[in-house]
Amino acid sequence: MPKRSQEHLDARRAQILEGARRTFSRHGYSGATVAKLEQEIGLSRGAIFNYFPSKLDLFFALATADQARIVEVWLDRGFPALLHEIAGESPDWLGVYVEHVRRLRTDAKLRERWKSRNADIDLRALEHLQDMQQRGEVRDDLPAEEIGQFLGVLLDGIALQTSAGFDVHVEPVLRLVADAIAPRQ
Amino acid sequence: MPKRSQEHLDARRAQILEGARRTFSRHGYSGATVAKLEQEIGLSRGAIFNYFPSKLDLFFALATADQARIVEVWLDRGFPALLHEIAGESPDWLGVYVEHVRRLRTDAKLRERWKSRNADIDLRALEHLQDMQQRGEVRDDLPAEEIGQFLGVLLDGIALQTSAGFDVHVEPVLRLVADAIAPRQ
Repeated sequence: MPKRSQEHLDARRAQILEGARRTFSRHGYSGATVAKLEQEIGLSRGAIFNYFPSKLDLFFALATADQARIVEVWLDRGFPALLHEIAGESPDWLGVYVEHVRRLRTDAKLRERWKSRNADIDLRALEHLQDMQQRGEVRDDLPAEEIGQFLGVLLDGIALQTSAGFDVHVEPVLRLVADAIAPRQ
Repeated sequence: MPKRSQEHLDARRAQILEGARRTFSRHGYSGATVAKLEQEIGLSRGAIFNYFPSKLDLFFALATADQARIVEVWLDRGFPALLHEIAGESPDWLGVYVEHVRRLRTDAKLRERWKSRNADIDLRALEHLQDMQQRGEVRDDLPAEEIGQFLGVLLDGIALQTSAGFDVHVEPVLRLVADAIAPRQ
């Protein structure tokens, strides 16, 4: 068997993830059968599951990449860019996200995975909020955790409404959020 | 066939709705088969579908009653009571709600139903916001529609997170919302 270059492996991994995202978006998570994944990705199940041992691993790889990207957007370009990013996300894909969030309570295995996936990125987001508090850009009369939770609720609301096909007007939401978290006089 | 009293009809209707809510909560909407509905409600499918022609009619009767109740809570006891009401709602039932919201975009029939269901109650909520603006209790530098959309996003975010089993801390969210929509100095 020829030795594969790292480049080849990375390209293959990206091909698999892109195809899996399309399959989940098109058919929903439970509708994405192995046959449909093979067809959309253009590789056999053997090749696919060589990179990702299960369908859930595929989903988590995608969701983790999304979350990392979302936090990067926030750190680099600020909260308005983050909100636009989520509201501009594919409604189909957000539907897959919502489907999993909804199952977290009743699916203990999923919940454990979700927690470990979130830990690092959540911490970075929290530290960013604390930095903003110290620079006087965000109110500091409430703990950063509580402000973070408020923003998380908003983002999940936007994700749910966008997955439903509602046209969320980001600008007024941004204005209200800015006033909510602005430093108090 | 003996003529049924209105009281009897109302009691039967309530029995059916309570049983349907339990069935949807326990098995999810798609998992709530007719056999399970019969068992949980304690009536035959003939009797059930005499009151509600389809499973979707059952869901809509429940969702409409919920929405009316939620708006009543807001009008009578204010926004804090409303948020507590949603965060204290059964996560199972909120999961059924989320499942439907998510399907609104791809299910045209559901969407039409949803719109007509919402129209009246949405209007009452909007008028309430406008009244609050006139009384100087809510900022009036933004249209009531935009403030209403912001609150709707928040409520959907709380519904999604509660359905996921997250413990949403309502008090800090309320404080941030109050500052977001307070009249500007």
